[in-house]
Amino acid sequence: MWQGLIHHYYDYLPVTQATPIVTLYEGNTPLIPVPRISSYLGKKNVQVWVKYDGLNPTGSFKDRGMTMAISKAKEQGATAVICASTGNTSAAAAAYARRAGMKAFVLIPDGYVALGKLAQALMYGAQVLAIQGNFDQALSLVRELAEKYPITLVNSLNPYRLEGQKTAAFEVVDQLGNAPDWLCIPVGNAGNITAYWMGFCQYFQQGKSQQLPRMFGFQAAGAAPIVHNQPVTHPETVATAIRIGNPVNWQNAIAVQEASQGGFYAVSDQEILTAYQLLAQEEGIFCEPASAASIAGLFHIQDQIPEGIRIVCVLTGNGLKDPDNALASGQKQLCQGIAPERDILAQAMGLLG
Amino acid sequence: MWQGLIHHYYDYLPVTQATPIVTLYEGNTPLIPVPRISSYLGKKNVQVWVKYDGLNPTGSFKDRGMTMAISKAKEQGATAVICASTGNTSAAAAAYARRAGMKAFVLIPDGYVALGKLAQALMYGAQVLAIQGNFDQALSLVRELAEKYPITLVNSLNPYRLEGQKTAAFEVVDQLGNAPDWLCIPVGNAGNITAYWMGFCQYFQQGKSQQLPRMFGFQAAGAAPIVHNQPVTHPETVATAIRIGNPVNWQNAIAVQEASQGGFYAVSDQEILTAYQLLAQEEGIFCEPASAASIAGLFHIQDQIPEGIRIVCVLTGNGLKDPDNALASGQKQLCQGIAPERDILAQAMGLLG
Repeated sequence: MWQGLIHHYYDYLPVTQATPIVTLYEGNTPLIPVPRISSYLGKKNVQVWVKYDGLNPTGSFKDRGMTMAISKAKEQGATAVICASTGNTSAAAAAYARRAGMKAFVLIPDGYVALGKLAQALMYGAQVLAIQGNFDQALSLVRELAEKYPITLVNSLNPYRLEGQKTAAFEVVDQLGNAPDWLCIPVGNAGNITAYWMGFCQYFQQGKSQQLPRMFGFQAAGAAPIVHNQPVTHPETVATAIRIGNPVNWQNAIAVQEASQGGFYAVSDQEILTAYQLLAQEEGIFCEPASAASIAGLFHIQDQIPEGIRIVCVLTGNGLKDPDNALASGQKQLCQGIAPERDILAQAMGLLG
Repeated sequence: MWQGLIHHYYDYLPVTQATPIVTLYEGNTPLIPVPRISSYLGKKNVQVWVKYDGLNPTGSFKDRGMTMAISKAKEQGATAVICASTGNTSAAAAAYARRAGMKAFVLIPDGYVALGKLAQALMYGAQVLAIQGNFDQALSLVRELAEKYPITLVNSLNPYRLEGQKTAAFEVVDQLGNAPDWLCIPVGNAGNITAYWMGFCQYFQQGKSQQLPRMFGFQAAGAAPIVHNQPVTHPETVATAIRIGNPVNWQNAIAVQEASQGGFYAVSDQEILTAYQLLAQEEGIFCEPASAASIAGLFHIQDQIPEGIRIVCVLTGNGLKDPDNALASGQKQLCQGIAPERDILAQAMGLLG
């Protein structure tokens, strides 16, 4: 029986007998073939899969890092955790903290965040504090609080998060029987691309794969500091989960690009939304907009795809996290006020030729 | 590599070489221990797990039935499917139909359904038709349309749905190494309790388990036709996924109760919401309100629980499907307008004693 990623990849993670494993049985997410997308690329014998990490317990890949971060916090005696986050991190932090019997605090800027985005953190029992200030102030305050009080910081700076996240690469190799030729991944703080590379390298060194993949990272055009080699002061994109102007793991990301002979590219919001709809309507897979950047990016560089390769695109979060974009995308398929008669319906459905 | 439940349980399902398997790699959902809930029951050595089927691809157990229904529809040459549904069924039908390259139609009563509930069906590319009529008229029209046109009905009447759903019982037995002593499950149309029992019996007959569980079904107090032995004309409950007044599988449900020496009970909306919050805030598991009826029900009959037994509670759907209830539940943990200073925050967080 699957008992979570720490249990499954115990020997590859910085845990010991003294580590209480705090888990929601995260990981073990499916690697799903996307045959229509493969064929739209127009390359011979190219196969594409998506690693659908939206099926983790709180709906995103953040659970992989959080099971490690919270387990280690508990090992060190912490009774509370804190983060500044408006989205997936706060949901994961709250869920795992409560699972561990700890308090969870989430700091956000007043008025900046739509309340719906916080539904999960609130539901999981986090205390959410909105400050009269901006996001940078929130970040600096959580660091101050974590220094002064016995509260563990679980923002991206926590080193255990990447350790947990690297297990996604292990799973991909275990599922495919080897590393893919290419890995395509959305890039915000660049933690996940760093973690995947850590995982691929560790597995390769252990002889679990015969190759390393080329790593391709995709940023939203309005939030593409790595692509343009300069921080973005006011990042803007529909892909909120990668709306980051100054990535924490910037230097790591550059190192991954160089070591793997990969690349970073920007994709427009329109490319992202097109990929988002294509995934749902042609493959039956509903991810959050930021996740679709990996598929958008693959189309963006399709001329570079060699024949016969195997490609994995990472889908980081569940589409249910962002119902507003889904509703906006689907409006034209809604037809209201139809008389309740078979033949009138048949006509509306296009069945009468 | 997990390739979906038809692939995994092929020999137990009505499929042949001629069946094209339409799958999103559903199933393989975690069976998560809930130690705090176990201890709150106050019984010696009672262990409780939740089967968290909200981690299926479209966020509910309906995917188990839909992979079967759509695969068989495709085998029979269908190019379109239809259902009358306001929730989980429409999402699953749309996703699997599009995955199979078929059209999906969803019929709903005009004005009856909050648009947010349809975000998934629309996103997956279903055509949603709202008729000037009530839900019964919608149901009767989808049957007429499916008779007259080459469109497959995938409402509960489709016999393949229960075949797929029974695999959840297989997974529970595979995960525990035996059937549990008790299975607790929310009951709306009573399809899922019927399917679980089918699965437990089939596995038992094949020698895969040493026992059969007692089956306990829980209905919402405002929608409890089986408990009260009469249909409910206007069912009402916060647990919308089990808001059903005249269950399709009523007689099957009674048969399951008798054969398994189980029982049916009603739980109030308040009991459901208490269990819903308890699961999220103490175990880190976020389900939709209807799912929490299984936990609410377990507390409702806790006096009957023998010492030393193993209990599985079924969580049918993901909490992200219903963010409004989550937000309403969490309002008191939100604190706004705090000055951006460490010590003021520390006070608001209760750190200053």
